[in-house]
Amino acid sequence: MRVLVPYDARNPKTRLDPLFSDTERRSFARTMLESVCRTLEATDRTPEILANRAIECDWPVTVDEQPLSDAVNTIIAESTESVAVVMADLALATPTALERLFDTDGQVVFAPGLGGGTNAMVVRDTSFRVDYHGTSISDHLAAARAIGLRPTVLDSFRLAIDIDGPQDCREALIHDADPAATWLRNAGFSLSVEAGEPTIVRGDRTTE
Amino acid sequence: MRVLVPYDARNPKTRLDPLFSDTERRSFARTMLESVCRTLEATDRTPEILANRAIECDWPVTVDEQPLSDAVNTIIAESTESVAVVMADLALATPTALERLFDTDGQVVFAPGLGGGTNAMVVRDTSFRVDYHGTSISDHLAAARAIGLRPTVLDSFRLAIDIDGPQDCREALIHDADPAATWLRNAGFSLSVEAGEPTIVRGDRTTE
Repeated sequence: MRVLVPYDARNPKTRLDPLFSDTERRSFARTMLESVCRTLEATDRTPEILANRAIECDWPVTVDEQPLSDAVNTIIAESTESVAVVMADLALATPTALERLFDTDGQVVFAPGLGGGTNAMVVRDTSFRVDYHGTSISDHLAAARAIGLRPTVLDSFRLAIDIDGPQDCREALIHDADPAATWLRNAGFSLSVEAGEPTIVRGDRTTE
Repeated sequence: MRVLVPYDARNPKTRLDPLFSDTERRSFARTMLESVCRTLEATDRTPEILANRAIECDWPVTVDEQPLSDAVNTIIAESTESVAVVMADLALATPTALERLFDTDGQVVFAPGLGGGTNAMVVRDTSFRVDYHGTSISDHLAAARAIGLRPTVLDSFRLAIDIDGPQDCREALIHDADPAATWLRNAGFSLSVEAGEPTIVRGDRTTE
């Protein structure tokens, strides 16, 4: 099985702009990418980064400048084996959660993301094509059924949290999801609980 | 095992105020309560509603006017058997997800919620006490360890989504989580995908 980890090497995680400087945003995105790759290694898989430009790292990188869905579909179409796609911002992913994904039966297996994304999948029937635009989990389920496949949905919280926006970062802190949580704490972020609702705040660390 | 479903019968789901009228909010909260109870019945358990005032419904109701944590702890302290606590706003809960919870080993088993809540738990060692204030999943893990218990955390997306705020409602629609999804659609709500991000909108249904 090939295990793809798509990564926007040009301008990653733009929705985190309200929290971070550009340099920080790139550093945090890279921290999460490496975290996902190491978590995959802990399941005895070799991650293959699918990036829109070359990056230096410890894993094989396939560069494809096409939009994400096209780049993934090109690989699925050419593949003679199963293909897994695991997003690079799954800071809460654990080896156990990914093993559950890989061990789940189904011609296509989807791990939905908050807000309707498809955070991870295993494609065992390579006639399937992805389309990450919009509410992709609904579209992927419909697309699989349309070509006669029986999709399976994995019920995982740890794979459902993709770190897309500021609210997602608090989940990394709440669940001590390292290395992302340590990165955030080192950058001065912490949780503040007001009216019973935790939010992520950035304070002067010397006063904490 | 006793299975408690706490329910604020006085003023439920106040954070949904931006979406609903008062009457709608109570109706939607009641729809979710009944949904959770029926889902529990499908696992061959008898739900026991723990409410802060009497309500009429198809299940036994225990009325306790104490704050939530105190009311739950009173029952745990008196119980000679395991106690499960399942929140009344888990619109995405399925029998399979709840069976996973009940089948998970551990002296205490927690299903975390988005934002750090504890959406469902099984307490098999009745020396444990709950405290739902703040980031309760972290507090519950620490409290269990402090009295020598080994807690287990269940990795479930379906139990992690509690319908607390407007953004949570979109998850009910995305995943067709009935009866909540049908209630929302009948009230005129639908998903609108803008810039790749689905949000819940209320439109004139005749124009859809």
